[in-house]
Amino acid sequence: MNLVIIDPSKDAVTSRGVTLSDRRFIHIRDVHQVVQGDVLKVGLLNGLLGLASVEHIDEESVSLTWAELSQCSPQPLPVTVILALPRPKMLKRVLQTLASMGVKDIWLIHSYRVDKSYWSTPILNENSLYEQMLLGLEQSGDTNLPTIHIRKRFKPFVEDELPALVEGKRAYVAHPYQALPCPPSELLPTVLAVGPEGGFIPYEVEKLNAAGLSSLSLGQRILKVETAVPVLLSRLFPVI
Amino acid sequence: MNLVIIDPSKDAVTSRGVTLSDRRFIHIRDVHQVVQGDVLKVGLLNGLLGLASVEHIDEESVSLTWAELSQCSPQPLPVTVILALPRPKMLKRVLQTLASMGVKDIWLIHSYRVDKSYWSTPILNENSLYEQMLLGLEQSGDTNLPTIHIRKRFKPFVEDELPALVEGKRAYVAHPYQALPCPPSELLPTVLAVGPEGGFIPYEVEKLNAAGLSSLSLGQRILKVETAVPVLLSRLFPVI
Repeated sequence: MNLVIIDPSKDAVTSRGVTLSDRRFIHIRDVHQVVQGDVLKVGLLNGLLGLASVEHIDEESVSLTWAELSQCSPQPLPVTVILALPRPKMLKRVLQTLASMGVKDIWLIHSYRVDKSYWSTPILNENSLYEQMLLGLEQSGDTNLPTIHIRKRFKPFVEDELPALVEGKRAYVAHPYQALPCPPSELLPTVLAVGPEGGFIPYEVEKLNAAGLSSLSLGQRILKVETAVPVLLSRLFPVI
Repeated sequence: MNLVIIDPSKDAVTSRGVTLSDRRFIHIRDVHQVVQGDVLKVGLLNGLLGLASVEHIDEESVSLTWAELSQCSPQPLPVTVILALPRPKMLKRVLQTLASMGVKDIWLIHSYRVDKSYWSTPILNENSLYEQMLLGLEQSGDTNLPTIHIRKRFKPFVEDELPALVEGKRAYVAHPYQALPCPPSELLPTVLAVGPEGGFIPYEVEKLNAAGLSSLSLGQRILKVETAVPVLLSRLFPVI
């Protein structure tokens, strides 16, 4: 946790500071091992970053007093990431990675090679998604919560919603066959679709191409989704 | 498993084919769900890739017959990666990622912020390291096993061994402060050092700089080691 994120809609925030007693308190106590007077990096969810000092810490909670809150979050990436739902364990990691890399718009979709059982994972509960996002933001020092959209049907999403998402943006589907090498990178509005383990099937690639997404290759190697995502984002946006 | 890797030093290989009954057999049976006559992508460890057909499969083993073995592995990355030993869970993932991305020379070193208990993890046993490497190679379709060097003392490594590793190569330490942005990428011989959670301490950065490694930044965000590694490699080598 490189940043303690305070959520004014959930935490008891006053103009003076905040008291924490949950996971963040335990981390501050056990990992940071703070004492009274220590200073921590804090940020308000979807708001400014800065410092807070430890006013009091005991067995049950830590009280922080705002020292200074005037910094902005790192620049977000102007990208919409469309992800065929990964298996639950990988989903957690990929969501944290996306949040840590500055992605703010995430669409989880079904595709032929997505195991249907994945859709019943408790990780897709609103609270759990929020937790994964927060872990990513705490890691990288960002306060702006990504938005996650869930679409359990491939065809209506691709035909009815995707064209509007793509409009005015460069748009790619990561697909190793019949693809162009990764294009030179600029900070342009972008849509990026990443398939499941085993990849999108030809029908799906056709539909995505028809919706305006060009196929994009990372070369000869087949990478796991959790590796392919940071590789693709860092190619598309060299300023991450 | 996108490639079944056969190790002639461990598997009973004949000129005709091979019979498998271990983890690979179970994966071929349960995930690939092959039947007699099916064709699988196979490769010989540190050797050629190609195809083999399923001659026989039952409850206990699968027998494969070489169909054609004439392809070369994807090009390796000309990089030496020096990694402050990550915590065990992350170590497994990072080793698999490095192997899958084509890194062939890996040095695991101690640094101030590496928890000493990490050095007693069973993942560092030779067999376990071999397994992690193999999982990465199976993922990406490569047969060339990386070499892993273990150095439990920072200073002797950096002073006595590192200068020779660096000679004639570009060399970087990932360190977000006082660093240059990631340089334009070419397929040049490279040394890359990545710190532990919390980063190298200033003394260590100085020593690494003195050994010829320039500090390299990924920007404002602080990324986990498992995210930073693919991001750094894909910046340094756009052809991955």
